[in-house]
Amino acid sequence: MRLLDKQHIEDIAIGSAVLGTGGGGNPYLGKLTAQRAIDQYGLLKLVKVDELPDDTLVVAPFGIGSPVPFIERLTIDEDLMYAYKAMTRYLGREIGAIMSAEIGGMNSVVPFALAARLGLPVLDLDGMGRAFPQLQLTTLTMYGHNASPVAVADEHGNVVIVDSIDNFWAERLARPAAIEFGAIAGGVGFPITVGDLKEAAVLDTVTLAETIGREIREARQEHRDPIKAVTDTTNGFRVFSGRIVDVSRQIERGWALGETTIMGGDEYAGRSMTIQFQNEHLVAMENGEVVVSVPDLIAILDSERGDPITTEDLRYGFRVTVLGMPCDEKWRTPAGLALAGPDHWGYEVPFVPVEERFAVGATR
Amino acid sequence: MRLLDKQHIEDIAIGSAVLGTGGGGNPYLGKLTAQRAIDQYGLLKLVKVDELPDDTLVVAPFGIGSPVPFIERLTIDEDLMYAYKAMTRYLGREIGAIMSAEIGGMNSVVPFALAARLGLPVLDLDGMGRAFPQLQLTTLTMYGHNASPVAVADEHGNVVIVDSIDNFWAERLARPAAIEFGAIAGGVGFPITVGDLKEAAVLDTVTLAETIGREIREARQEHRDPIKAVTDTTNGFRVFSGRIVDVSRQIERGWALGETTIMGGDEYAGRSMTIQFQNEHLVAMENGEVVVSVPDLIAILDSERGDPITTEDLRYGFRVTVLGMPCDEKWRTPAGLALAGPDHWGYEVPFVPVEERFAVGATR
Repeated sequence: MRLLDKQHIEDIAIGSAVLGTGGGGNPYLGKLTAQRAIDQYGLLKLVKVDELPDDTLVVAPFGIGSPVPFIERLTIDEDLMYAYKAMTRYLGREIGAIMSAEIGGMNSVVPFALAARLGLPVLDLDGMGRAFPQLQLTTLTMYGHNASPVAVADEHGNVVIVDSIDNFWAERLARPAAIEFGAIAGGVGFPITVGDLKEAAVLDTVTLAETIGREIREARQEHRDPIKAVTDTTNGFRVFSGRIVDVSRQIERGWALGETTIMGGDEYAGRSMTIQFQNEHLVAMENGEVVVSVPDLIAILDSERGDPITTEDLRYGFRVTVLGMPCDEKWRTPAGLALAGPDHWGYEVPFVPVEERFAVGATR
Repeated sequence: MRLLDKQHIEDIAIGSAVLGTGGGGNPYLGKLTAQRAIDQYGLLKLVKVDELPDDTLVVAPFGIGSPVPFIERLTIDEDLMYAYKAMTRYLGREIGAIMSAEIGGMNSVVPFALAARLGLPVLDLDGMGRAFPQLQLTTLTMYGHNASPVAVADEHGNVVIVDSIDNFWAERLARPAAIEFGAIAGGVGFPITVGDLKEAAVLDTVTLAETIGREIREARQEHRDPIKAVTDTTNGFRVFSGRIVDVSRQIERGWALGETTIMGGDEYAGRSMTIQFQNEHLVAMENGEVVVSVPDLIAILDSERGDPITTEDLRYGFRVTVLGMPCDEKWRTPAGLALAGPDHWGYEVPFVPVEERFAVGATR
């Protein structure tokens, strides 16, 4: 067990934005909420799976809805508390720890605010090792664990509990409630034991996010290259660098769909890269050929400061560097690729691990 | 306690259609479901409030959605069972009896199927003494009892529990779930104790519905006037008789809105009556003047056989008789009229009890 302070939260928020691969919402406001909770309730306890009994029940809090209206409301404190209380009532069991369903973006830090308020520890793991925009896209799903039951609440105390036969229905039934609540709501779901998490979760990812954020911060302070700090920490690769020359995006059924084109600079001069996204970056292409693809992680960072840039913040003229980072091994299994591989997103390309193309001495 | 057999269910279904005042859905299929449950699980126990301890917890099962698609599906057995199980899990208390939220229409008999299956008694009461199309329009609301928590389920086992701060939100959050489930779903709600029901419910209405149905049946068998049998049983009045000359109806946001015009025959020759409805009949008018209004009950019966006719079954040329029947006294209090009086439905007329206009010797 170790304690997390406000600086740790700051670092985790930055690291989560890198692992959010352009999506997952801006972690800035989630971070403020978590930091305020630490001010109010004290330092946060971060624990490893082997520090708790296997039968400890864990739930994952999250914000549900479109990330955009979240900007209108500073916190989802009360929503989360109402959802949590309804969840414990429905489960009829005591909850012993809190986890993040995804380590990428806003929902990586949102759980910390609730954990601090409840005095519960946060587990050093998550259900994705990155961000994905659908409830069923977790490594927990591969091991037969559903998001359901899920409780969703507004700040007035209206609660909807969804207990569905699968995650498809959980998504279908929870989303309309969030819309009735005004497009953003606090949710609690994914009840699972610590014993099951040992097998099914992506471990140590809170620490990974924190390390990424800290390395970026320290590299900047010490005038080192913050992007190298990220690739070193994540076993990732610099895939492309240049200037954004085109961004197109549209909102369809709550999804941010679009692509970014980057004109190469320096060693990439004369080349261009296009990155397509559906909330998260999915494929990076050169000359129409996919060179990095989901479920591996594709991040776009500010070339100088190393700040991760979400798809909604991409602008013409930005000087950016594209990173490819290996996803968790679970996503590279046949089950993982069936769930969230290129096919799931409509790309008929085989998945090629990023290191096979970009590691020194790689043959393709 | 007395036992209800399939003939009793038949009579209750007919009586409920009279009390349904043209709405509440056709009780035919609900009746079949309840009768099949009796075949399978045995006779149904009907109990009075003073036969159970005051702290006995009661819930009301119901079908939710549009009555029309119900025709496509013969039963909502499994839906109700899934909703019931989720409800008991959420309440964390044993349920001791079943009630009907409304005695008018389909939802008067739907609860009997679940009660038979569970071996639980049905209480001889309901929350309206008639039919109304919105969750908050119950006498329970007047005494501060909400529909919430409400569980809604489909036949696959998908469940949504709504725990809302008021009935407005219960309606707003439960309805989208029913729509996702395909426009009709099984629900369980209105958890309340027997002690509270003594004060807040409309008592003895299952027996009332049964008596109405039996009187109609026996009058027909004995070649007596079935309509007189209904007015005698309900303290109601024959308000008009004639032939339907016009029916207009439209569906708006799931509501059946419209009006029926009847050209008078016999003693009513030369006069005409128009009845306006929003799912249920709301006002009966002669020469533009309201002569019977909600919350009093307005039923349209076949003039010869005494069969109650729902708004969707009204047709040009039918020979019909209009009855006005006094509602429960609770609806005539200031609180009752504020909740479901003419104003609520957009009619700026004072409520005048039906007996003040139609009783022998009435002055207006």
